[in-house]
Amino acid sequence: MQHAPAPALDDPALDVVELTRRVCDTESVSGAERALADAVEAALRSFAGPGGHLEVLRDGDAVVARTRLGRAERVLLAGHLDTVPLADPPNLPVRRERHPADGDVLVGRGTCDMKGGVAVQLVLARETAAALAAGRAPQRDVTFVFYDHEEVEAARNGLGRLARNSPQALAADFAVLLEPSSAVVEGGCNGTLRAEVTTTGRAAHSARAWRGSNAIHAAAPVLARLAQYVPREVEVEGLVFREGLNAVGISGGIAGNVIPDRCTVTVNHRFAPAFSAAQAEAHVREVFDGFDVRVTDAADGARPGLHLPAAAEFVRRTGTQPLPKFGWTDVARFSALGVPAVNYGPGDNATAHADDERCRVDELERCLDVLRGWLLGAGEVA
Amino acid sequence: MQHAPAPALDDPALDVVELTRRVCDTESVSGAERALADAVEAALRSFAGPGGHLEVLRDGDAVVARTRLGRAERVLLAGHLDTVPLADPPNLPVRRERHPADGDVLVGRGTCDMKGGVAVQLVLARETAAALAAGRAPQRDVTFVFYDHEEVEAARNGLGRLARNSPQALAADFAVLLEPSSAVVEGGCNGTLRAEVTTTGRAAHSARAWRGSNAIHAAAPVLARLAQYVPREVEVEGLVFREGLNAVGISGGIAGNVIPDRCTVTVNHRFAPAFSAAQAEAHVREVFDGFDVRVTDAADGARPGLHLPAAAEFVRRTGTQPLPKFGWTDVARFSALGVPAVNYGPGDNATAHADDERCRVDELERCLDVLRGWLLGAGEVA
Repeated sequence: MQHAPAPALDDPALDVVELTRRVCDTESVSGAERALADAVEAALRSFAGPGGHLEVLRDGDAVVARTRLGRAERVLLAGHLDTVPLADPPNLPVRRERHPADGDVLVGRGTCDMKGGVAVQLVLARETAAALAAGRAPQRDVTFVFYDHEEVEAARNGLGRLARNSPQALAADFAVLLEPSSAVVEGGCNGTLRAEVTTTGRAAHSARAWRGSNAIHAAAPVLARLAQYVPREVEVEGLVFREGLNAVGISGGIAGNVIPDRCTVTVNHRFAPAFSAAQAEAHVREVFDGFDVRVTDAADGARPGLHLPAAAEFVRRTGTQPLPKFGWTDVARFSALGVPAVNYGPGDNATAHADDERCRVDELERCLDVLRGWLLGAGEVA
Repeated sequence: MQHAPAPALDDPALDVVELTRRVCDTESVSGAERALADAVEAALRSFAGPGGHLEVLRDGDAVVARTRLGRAERVLLAGHLDTVPLADPPNLPVRRERHPADGDVLVGRGTCDMKGGVAVQLVLARETAAALAAGRAPQRDVTFVFYDHEEVEAARNGLGRLARNSPQALAADFAVLLEPSSAVVEGGCNGTLRAEVTTTGRAAHSARAWRGSNAIHAAAPVLARLAQYVPREVEVEGLVFREGLNAVGISGGIAGNVIPDRCTVTVNHRFAPAFSAAQAEAHVREVFDGFDVRVTDAADGARPGLHLPAAAEFVRRTGTQPLPKFGWTDVARFSALGVPAVNYGPGDNATAHADDERCRVDELERCLDVLRGWLLGAGEVA
């Protein structure tokens, strides 16, 4: 595929708003992150400078930059480079405009999910290198991770690939994933499990239905149990996680004159990080006791870990009351690596993937300020 | 499309078994009846002879042959030329073999549904013309109808097209449709109605299901009503028709992480010929009261009409106890034209469309004998 040359991201005069715009305008729908990854790598190498203040690694279209100060504590910031496909008509290039409810916003694919967060990371990497060059060393080592293929099936996820290829690149005591959270800390995440609940019957001509057995009718109690199900609310380390158990698909039927011999209800269970995927599976099997249940995929959630010192300090700095994260995010990958992680980034998740995807400029600036103060100490940056 | 020349069907030496074999071996899956229709037309014109004992009409791939004796009563025999697609591997050419349960059988596509009946009609047309040539005129006028596109959507049905283009060609006092009925009279037929029962909801991310409303869960009472439904049994003119109301399809779901906003249950109602399609629709709407119901197609059934003199005499000749026909058949088209009609033909309908489709040879011969005696008088044929 031919790409236009990506705009440079290493100009020290670029503020977070202009960087967000440039990162967004470099299209990078999942699978086509190359140009943006190249531009990010070039910027990070430029920031590292001849002094090598940042070590830069590349793995496919993932790029990692980190300090090597030998500090007792290392924190990690991470964000994905890819987006879902553009809207039709295309919601790029980015426009800056005044939104009736949100005020000063950037509008366009990626502004919310999550190139605003990517731009914040780039500014912080630049300022970290600049601080080191000026002899002002941060208190903690820091790792910046930019990765590919977050918006597609889990097997292609760039963070997962890094964890397999270079687990040491992801080593840290605490991680912040800059997914859109309206600049509020969202702790941990629910796990997710999908299963197929299948009923079977015996096919027959529908003019002589009594010779068969209707598998769709047999699914009536499956839907009744779903309709009657009351999701749990589970407190984990001070945050209340709302669970869910929902049909997300149903299919059955052979032809308009045939009694169906099979009906499949696909259910999605979102479960609090108090439980493992195995426990969630047991729960789903209990709910559908008596039916054929096949789990098709499951992923553990992540406990919030907000009691840990690095997390507690970070939450304090944000000045916000942490909320639980209901959706599954890559914080669970860090959790699985033994790295406590939270979601904290600019953008209202409700506009992610939407045609009018947008990000408030004040959230971009607030996230940058909070993270800058935490990483580099308030007021220390030129 | 290239077709091999169809074997001749006009040889007076061919018995009903050999004719069935030739008719079957001339493949005529719906839409490809041309070669067989040509062979049938050629045979009928040959039977008609220079004396013009049969008038032969052609409409598309339908062929009609009839006597024009000016009798007070006209009876009509009808059968379709098309079949469902061949099995894989192909279940042609026809094999004659001994079946453990059914004895001497012809096996192959069309043997049951319904080229055995077509062959019976061809023998009867030949013998009728021969009787006329020999000066032995039948008591009743008779019409033989061979038509296309019975196994596909109703709009293409050749009998329906004939009824629109040449209603006079179908004029009769009584009709026998030679659909497979195991050589037993099956009177009338149930009507059939299909409807979509749709529930709606509000889409949302399944991690935050409480922001949406699940349309599949909302379908639980639809399935519950179907599962609890007790079909009626309705006596019509001495035959007991079993009705049915069944889901034949269900679909819903947008993606594995989205609360579905729509679920559609397709139901098929088979209703006794005591009721009109409009009454059947009212019944379905009553069953699904409170839900969105859209009728997608409906066809009236047919009353058996066995009390009519021509029918009563025919039933007496078969020596069998008539049964109700549960499936919808083209007898309903005759009924709609004001022509009482019954199903009576060789072959067990349970093998129709099956890979091992077959027809008992003794049923071929019995149907031919019964119809011959009725049309031409027992023992009158050379």
